[in-house]
Amino acid sequence: MTSPEQEIRDVALRARKASYDLALATPGAKDAALHAMAEALVGRGEEILTANADDIVRAEAGGTPPNIIDRLRLTPERLEGMAQGLRDVAGLPDPVGEVVRGSTLANGLELRQVRVPFGVVGMIYEARPNVTADAAGICLKSGNAVLLRGSSSAKASNAAIVAVLRDAATDSGLPADAVQLVPGDTHDSVKALMRARGLVDVLIPRGGAGLIRTVVEESTVPVIETGVGNVHVYVDKAADLEKALAIVLNSKTHRTSVCNSAESLLVHADIADVFLPRVVAALQEQGVAIHGDEAFCGFDGVTPATDEDWGSEYLSLDIAAAVVPSLEEAVSHIRRWSSQHTEAIVTEDLAAARRFTAAVDSAAVMVNASTRFTDGGEFGFGAEIGISTQKLHARGPMGLPEMTSTKYVVTGDGHIR
Amino acid sequence: MTSPEQEIRDVALRARKASYDLALATPGAKDAALHAMAEALVGRGEEILTANADDIVRAEAGGTPPNIIDRLRLTPERLEGMAQGLRDVAGLPDPVGEVVRGSTLANGLELRQVRVPFGVVGMIYEARPNVTADAAGICLKSGNAVLLRGSSSAKASNAAIVAVLRDAATDSGLPADAVQLVPGDTHDSVKALMRARGLVDVLIPRGGAGLIRTVVEESTVPVIETGVGNVHVYVDKAADLEKALAIVLNSKTHRTSVCNSAESLLVHADIADVFLPRVVAALQEQGVAIHGDEAFCGFDGVTPATDEDWGSEYLSLDIAAAVVPSLEEAVSHIRRWSSQHTEAIVTEDLAAARRFTAAVDSAAVMVNASTRFTDGGEFGFGAEIGISTQKLHARGPMGLPEMTSTKYVVTGDGHIR
Repeated sequence: MTSPEQEIRDVALRARKASYDLALATPGAKDAALHAMAEALVGRGEEILTANADDIVRAEAGGTPPNIIDRLRLTPERLEGMAQGLRDVAGLPDPVGEVVRGSTLANGLELRQVRVPFGVVGMIYEARPNVTADAAGICLKSGNAVLLRGSSSAKASNAAIVAVLRDAATDSGLPADAVQLVPGDTHDSVKALMRARGLVDVLIPRGGAGLIRTVVEESTVPVIETGVGNVHVYVDKAADLEKALAIVLNSKTHRTSVCNSAESLLVHADIADVFLPRVVAALQEQGVAIHGDEAFCGFDGVTPATDEDWGSEYLSLDIAAAVVPSLEEAVSHIRRWSSQHTEAIVTEDLAAARRFTAAVDSAAVMVNASTRFTDGGEFGFGAEIGISTQKLHARGPMGLPEMTSTKYVVTGDGHIR
Repeated sequence: MTSPEQEIRDVALRARKASYDLALATPGAKDAALHAMAEALVGRGEEILTANADDIVRAEAGGTPPNIIDRLRLTPERLEGMAQGLRDVAGLPDPVGEVVRGSTLANGLELRQVRVPFGVVGMIYEARPNVTADAAGICLKSGNAVLLRGSSSAKASNAAIVAVLRDAATDSGLPADAVQLVPGDTHDSVKALMRARGLVDVLIPRGGAGLIRTVVEESTVPVIETGVGNVHVYVDKAADLEKALAIVLNSKTHRTSVCNSAESLLVHADIADVFLPRVVAALQEQGVAIHGDEAFCGFDGVTPATDEDWGSEYLSLDIAAAVVPSLEEAVSHIRRWSSQHTEAIVTEDLAAARRFTAAVDSAAVMVNASTRFTDGGEFGFGAEIGISTQKLHARGPMGLPEMTSTKYVVTGDGHIR
């Protein structure tokens, strides 16, 4: 019996070895491998769907709720979607080798700061097996070997997908160990992965708040924290109320289960009389339950908000709502309760927009736009590995460049100090 | 009695409050404060020197070695040096507000990625009280409030310096709490600082390997790891031996106590016959003790190297030395033993330089230049908070831009999805 630590060590060392080849692979070689992987996902779809059926049967037997079963389920269409995702990543610019900055120093030394892969990336994620292919594609394109740890409910599907991707990598002349599953499906193996400092360069958790908190608190490997969004929309006294209504509704109801949907509404007191009746009616018409302060509780169907509401990422048709006496008070409320993912101001007043965007310290600050725009696809990044809510390394939607580090290459001609 | 956790919480919340003002302070206001601080360090030098004398007396009574006492000692000249450091930082470009990238999206949304301060930075450092002023200046210029935790041996000096800096900040209209000492001088207060996730945005340890390891392993606050350097010089078969000799000597002996000095020498077998006698004689003439492999042990005075030698950051007049059969073997040796700080190749062969710089994954890779050039000052960054040896966020010498995060500001006109 090998211990979880030893198992992680073994896969991480194989990943490290693969990462040396990947770091030197040309963009052409990596893109060819991504296309081969896409091809293989579709060509060997039967294999993957059979494995997926096993996961579904097991999940149903275990009484898994239908919405989770749906996320777990693969279909030929979903496989084609995963394949297309890999082809899309192949079409993006290669971040590795990009010269980020460069100059010739006073003494003639040539200084270049160049993007390089991290090396070995660990991904810990939940439920959806399509993340397996997405993450593998983004890591491969950015020259990183990846250790994948999906949820045990998708065990058979993930194993089948990884087997297909590894074969395609080998056929393309890249090391199979560029993509590996973390062995074992107990918490011990996750724990060992989180303690593999020096073996794994960065860990990216993707999933619910509980998963992310665990990784952030227990990991000695550097972590990029993604996702939790307690997102606010502030409607300023100088707002265009039509725009405000559209933005509040879109931010809250366009898709409720995602991190960039709004969870709290703040309205300037000067426009409360005219705006509250309209926004309450419109939200309730869309089935939104409003948890309000005193002013909002003057309307039928609004329940009183508690501190728990102000601090909640509902991910449902619920919204916390309050009237604030000033833009500054809106900022104070946001500073206290926000998870610093995305906040929006609706205003026609340039000075107000300037004060809000300067004072609110979130990964994205929207002016007269829906919070739903905080997204790698919407930002034009092509691929997104997640949305970072931390301040170190990457903040906001993370594309391929965020999956790299840099090194300085300094060239001289016998220079000494 | 308040607990260390409560004490850290209190200073961190005061720092957070100050950080809101600092983030909005104009470059002019910050530079004026830095000049006022420089003025005050010199003007109130007596106060600081008196406090420093107390630290020195205490250290001498405790049997502290003379070299540590020397690092602890302040003089009018050293105070002037600290003041000049602050003036230099004032003269550098302000990183806050720099637009890192920007575009107009297909739907007309204006996207800008803007540099913003981290917020609250914690610095844990050893011995030298001049770091107190340096760190305060760099943090203030980059818009960050700083929590300073120096060594207890410099307690009185640090308290005096911080009192002077805080007064100068207040006189300049900036919050005094932009610069605070962490209360208490036990390990408990350091521990509380390392666990203050959410209250402190980033921790930067500066000091010996032991300090850095402790912070990296115990901190839940994101850490930027600085400094440990097991630095290699590889002399290729196509090296110009004059340049090689100069670079090896400069890298090893120019200053031994710093992280960018060389600790290991690798020589290609094809030139061993001619180069080994010369390099052994030259190093020994400079008083360097050579810990060598079999080939090096053929020379008088060379002792056999163990695995401990290959893994050592000596920080002294010692060097580990080996002959390697190929560039690839040099790369393998470096991959096994290096701390990924700085490595150098000496060669006239462009293909060899290209292979080495691509394959060696260190913060800085030198071609025909001394490893001593890995330095914020030498790179032209003006100020340096440390040299990062991690891959996340910042790698290599860290200047002012590395002391910031970014946020996306997205401006629309009622845009919804």
